[in-house]
Amino acid sequence: MKPSIPKGTRDFSPEEVARRNYIFDSIKRNFALYGFQPIETPSFENSDTLMGKYGEEGDRLIFKILNSGDYLSKVDATLYSEKDSQKITSKISEKALRYDLTVPFARYVVQHQNEITFPFKRYQIQPVWRADRPQKGRFREFYQCDADVVGSKSLWQEVEFIQLYDAVFSELGLKGVIIKINNRKILAGIAETIGAEDKLIDFTVALDKLDKIGEEGVKREMREKGIPEEALTKLQPLFSMKGTALKQLESLKQLLNNSKIGIQGVEELEFISKTIEALGLQTSFFQIDVTLARGLNYYTGAIIEVSAPEEVNMGSIGGGGRYDDLTGIFGLKDMSGMGISFGLDRIYLVLDELNLFPETVSENSKALFINFGENEALYAMTAIKNLRQKGIAVEMYPDSAKMGKQMGYADKRNIPFTILAGESEMKGQIFTLKNMKTGEQQSLDFEGLKNALKN
Amino acid sequence: MKPSIPKGTRDFSPEEVARRNYIFDSIKRNFALYGFQPIETPSFENSDTLMGKYGEEGDRLIFKILNSGDYLSKVDATLYSEKDSQKITSKISEKALRYDLTVPFARYVVQHQNEITFPFKRYQIQPVWRADRPQKGRFREFYQCDADVVGSKSLWQEVEFIQLYDAVFSELGLKGVIIKINNRKILAGIAETIGAEDKLIDFTVALDKLDKIGEEGVKREMREKGIPEEALTKLQPLFSMKGTALKQLESLKQLLNNSKIGIQGVEELEFISKTIEALGLQTSFFQIDVTLARGLNYYTGAIIEVSAPEEVNMGSIGGGGRYDDLTGIFGLKDMSGMGISFGLDRIYLVLDELNLFPETVSENSKALFINFGENEALYAMTAIKNLRQKGIAVEMYPDSAKMGKQMGYADKRNIPFTILAGESEMKGQIFTLKNMKTGEQQSLDFEGLKNALKN
Repeated sequence: MKPSIPKGTRDFSPEEVARRNYIFDSIKRNFALYGFQPIETPSFENSDTLMGKYGEEGDRLIFKILNSGDYLSKVDATLYSEKDSQKITSKISEKALRYDLTVPFARYVVQHQNEITFPFKRYQIQPVWRADRPQKGRFREFYQCDADVVGSKSLWQEVEFIQLYDAVFSELGLKGVIIKINNRKILAGIAETIGAEDKLIDFTVALDKLDKIGEEGVKREMREKGIPEEALTKLQPLFSMKGTALKQLESLKQLLNNSKIGIQGVEELEFISKTIEALGLQTSFFQIDVTLARGLNYYTGAIIEVSAPEEVNMGSIGGGGRYDDLTGIFGLKDMSGMGISFGLDRIYLVLDELNLFPETVSENSKALFINFGENEALYAMTAIKNLRQKGIAVEMYPDSAKMGKQMGYADKRNIPFTILAGESEMKGQIFTLKNMKTGEQQSLDFEGLKNALKN
Repeated sequence: MKPSIPKGTRDFSPEEVARRNYIFDSIKRNFALYGFQPIETPSFENSDTLMGKYGEEGDRLIFKILNSGDYLSKVDATLYSEKDSQKITSKISEKALRYDLTVPFARYVVQHQNEITFPFKRYQIQPVWRADRPQKGRFREFYQCDADVVGSKSLWQEVEFIQLYDAVFSELGLKGVIIKINNRKILAGIAETIGAEDKLIDFTVALDKLDKIGEEGVKREMREKGIPEEALTKLQPLFSMKGTALKQLESLKQLLNNSKIGIQGVEELEFISKTIEALGLQTSFFQIDVTLARGLNYYTGAIIEVSAPEEVNMGSIGGGGRYDDLTGIFGLKDMSGMGISFGLDRIYLVLDELNLFPETVSENSKALFINFGENEALYAMTAIKNLRQKGIAVEMYPDSAKMGKQMGYADKRNIPFTILAGESEMKGQIFTLKNMKTGEQQSLDFEGLKNALKN
């Protein structure tokens, strides 16, 4: 019986944890620099907090927790006799694992509204669970890294979130990510302009394929979905939007000049684009992308998506947008907000593919003291204690095993130095420091040893 | 409908997260200094990995996850008609939330034994879940902070874990914790000596009450449990053990001189005590405590427990011990190990009660730029961008609201400085820095501002 873990879940080795923490730490440091503060919510929520918030498909993918004790006794006989899993679930399960961090955040804001100072800038980095079919890069347990601000409609927030993406990816050495922006109001304006408000989703799904199937392919798909020829003619400018963000917005303004909401969307993007241009980005590209339609049922203003640099075939590594009524589902109205998310697992894959993880990212001991027996070990342990108090990570091989075994251990653990302190070293109150890479040895007193390991 | 969270779970506010992280960070830093490396395991395991490992009561307290889809279709009609919750559980639930970090660690070691370099020193800081009745200080979701080493029987590990406890609590400013040690072999030796091997638990439970009910009370309870008078006479030295650890071990040696295992336990504690005495502890007390019997069914050698300083009424804030067969349950024999755990929630309460959290523990912005309108905001945002790149956390109020509102926000958020940059400041390329505590104002150029905020 070889032990295993549930499909879609993962064990993380020390190396992997260190690399993941490298990403988390960069995200957290920048969240804090931008004034966001961390909160945490429970892993499971009351089912009625989560159910019905993610659509029918989402509800199915929520992991439900079985009630404790004699849970079946609460199912009445008639219902029980139907043996209908769906109907019985709510009787035998009252709690569920969180599906994302957004709904728990909304619940948190409403529940704690009297303790919170608005605008409330929070970040949250915690695992979420989805009973999705596992596949490459899709897991049943994964971390979300979210920053949101609620309680203000200011467009400066859009500006800051774009800068925040740029700051994190620049710090991680991931240059050339593409930060794409759209606005729900522009999509609404387009639909209004072509008289197809009801076909907004079909329309954006088709438009989204422009890169892949070309202008003619997109038009064919739109025709199939019942978008009239006249509308396609009106849409022509969308297929040939070129140049800077501000130039593209100029074309959009003309296209949407009869739609009040459309013009509003264009003006919002104008403010954001101008400001981003004035402030500059460190290493990222900024683009208008009217095909961007993520979270369409959810976002009400800006929609943002970040793509990995073009040389990596990975797609979105982050995204977010503005929502006008996040907390309405829990009874607190008029709480406009905006949030973004970092896709940890994909960022990990990208950094790995581009060899961007620093070599020193692993937490590892600086040196291993070889164990020569009880007296020598006590001499070693006294030095170890003092080195640790100076913040230098060192350890001793626990047993006085053969030298080869102890050296092999240092080698396999990638510990860069070993320290030999046998009888003769004890007499001279010195230590022999061996560089495991070069084989070079040095005789040092404690001060010398400390200084050698500090660097 | 006011939103709420399941009983026994908690939301953590930014202050609480910061304080918890202050403790976690100290524990992690010291784990790393002592050569431990982090791993992470999934939140849920296959049920058969967990079930049967914690006794009947433990099994009951494990949170089970309901299978997805039409889970009832897999329950055959006969079994279903019995409507027996306990019998049906294993048919409708294949996964369960982890109950501790020890069993998942054992599973990890066995599953990854070919990738691991032994002795394997790992730490793991993750939440665990128990369907326990919630009460003060007991939660259904809480973090465990464990460090273990497997693959060596060396007593140096006991020594290092004691030093590790001392290092963490000293760093946290929690002086005077009491690190108590016992040894399973001593308890076995006592039972052997008094001829009551089968009454080991009754015996230790009674002995444990010595502080509360006194020598006569303990003896009365032992008599009630059927421990013979003759045994009580033999045990007399246990009631009057005084003096240093080494002196107490001397009395134990006499008491147990006919028990091989007992003497072995005493000798182990002798080595540990002598070494700890030679190395010294920073701020903690070290005590032999033969009444210590935690994890009796589990530990095979040293048993350790850490109590909060005497002025705090809290009890154990950490504990651990040596086990000889952790991974045997998953088929890997002869893997001796030792581990300890830090009780985060109790440590939090103790630090809070003794006012030991540093005031600066919260992640917070250094300054809030007041928003005077679009042009001024752009001027501010340029400075903000440059300050953030220097690692200084600052933010701007998102809307050009009334001054009082913006100042009030800085005040409520405890942001120590506000920065005013209106038309006149823009002209002079300066900033007015206001200390929110003293009301003092300074006119500074960007360099001056940067230096003022850096300190």
